Amino acid sequence: MFEKEIWKPGNMLYPIPAVMVSCGSLQKPNIITIAWAGTVCTNPAMVSISIRKERYSYNIIKESKEFVINLVTRDLVRAADFCGVKSGSKLDKFKETKLTALQGSIVAAPLIGESPVNIECAVRDIIALGSHDLFLAEVVSVSVDKKYMDDKGRFSLNKSGLIVYSHGEYYSLGELLGKFGYSVQSSNSQKRRKTHKKQAE
Amino acid sequence: MFEKEIWKPGNMLYPIPAVMVSCGSLQKPNIITIAWAGTVCTNPAMVSISIRKERYSYNIIKESKEFVINLVTRDLVRAADFCGVKSGSKLDKFKETKLTALQGSIVAAPLIGESPVNIECAVRDIIALGSHDLFLAEVVSVSVDKKYMDDKGRFSLNKSGLIVYSHGEYYSLGELLGKFGYSVQSSNSQKRRKTHKKQAE
Repeated sequence: MFEKEIWKPGNMLYPIPAVMVSCGSLQKPNIITIAWAGTVCTNPAMVSISIRKERYSYNIIKESKEFVINLVTRDLVRAADFCGVKSGSKLDKFKETKLTALQGSIVAAPLIGESPVNIECAVRDIIALGSHDLFLAEVVSVSVDKKYMDDKGRFSLNKSGLIVYSHGEYYSLGELLGKFGYSVQSSNSQKRRKTHKKQAE
Repeated sequence: MFEKEIWKPGNMLYPIPAVMVSCGSLQKPNIITIAWAGTVCTNPAMVSISIRKERYSYNIIKESKEFVINLVTRDLVRAADFCGVKSGSKLDKFKETKLTALQGSIVAAPLIGESPVNIECAVRDIIALGSHDLFLAEVVSVSVDKKYMDDKGRFSLNKSGLIVYSHGEYYSLGELLGKFGYSVQSSNSQKRRKTHKKQAE
């Protein structure tokens, strides 16, 4: 019934976010695009990013112990790709991509103005794994673009055009397939349920 | 130019994978759906998943030090949602979702037959973060469904109908926006470039 082919160990967990991580300072900002990123804890809100030691941003983040995760939309995907390929040691990525570095609310690392969500992070631990070091960080502030607030004051993140990265390719989000918990709700209770649901965690 | 609203710290890193993690044994298998999952290292290939101590699968994985990440497609999204809401302490999730538990190639934890990619993982470390513990694991084997191999022997993961989870909602993948590195390639070199490119890492 199932025909499986067995491969050697490798990275096949997709789709994943591709996020632009900004670091440094307003005076000397940099951006590195990271695909090895994710949420690791709900309370406190924590994320992880993995960075190769050879990358220019590695030492900046290791020393400042701060970075900002900026979510990537359709309008930003070309800039994100560029910031994943090029090194900040050789050029000013904010200038090259024409993106805007904004003052963060807590960390010294800049936000990317054009991103709909900026997640300011403070590094709590760095764990050497092999090719990459894992940076475990606590979220210390979140900034969102007011243009995605609807008339009821809800933030419509999924109308901002977020993208994902899957096996070498960038994709937009497609069809809405369901909301968290839909598999156990009757159609009536789905109509009655609150819009903001506790997320899968 | 940019109007930002500043929020308290929270989990806003989206879209993310929602994966079905299988654990236990063929005789007593379980599935837990995990949104806090990601790749953390290229070499060795490593992933992380975060689990609340209260979850039924927490002790199973902590004791066996093994689990399998099964990628989720459109056909599996209802089952994935169900396995994120219900507890394996009360029911047999394989039976309830009519999914097939298959023998893994290395670990004792079962694969989900219907998933296009099964990633067998061996836990290397468990780090308490707060609400969740972070399980750092090495990929020890990958199984893929042969029906997504094309006539040139390439695996077309992005034709399997993978889904993502974003801010409480499940989405299909939409439009292909570009391949890794497209921002720095001329149109000619894009035509010439190899299909399998080194991925963003």
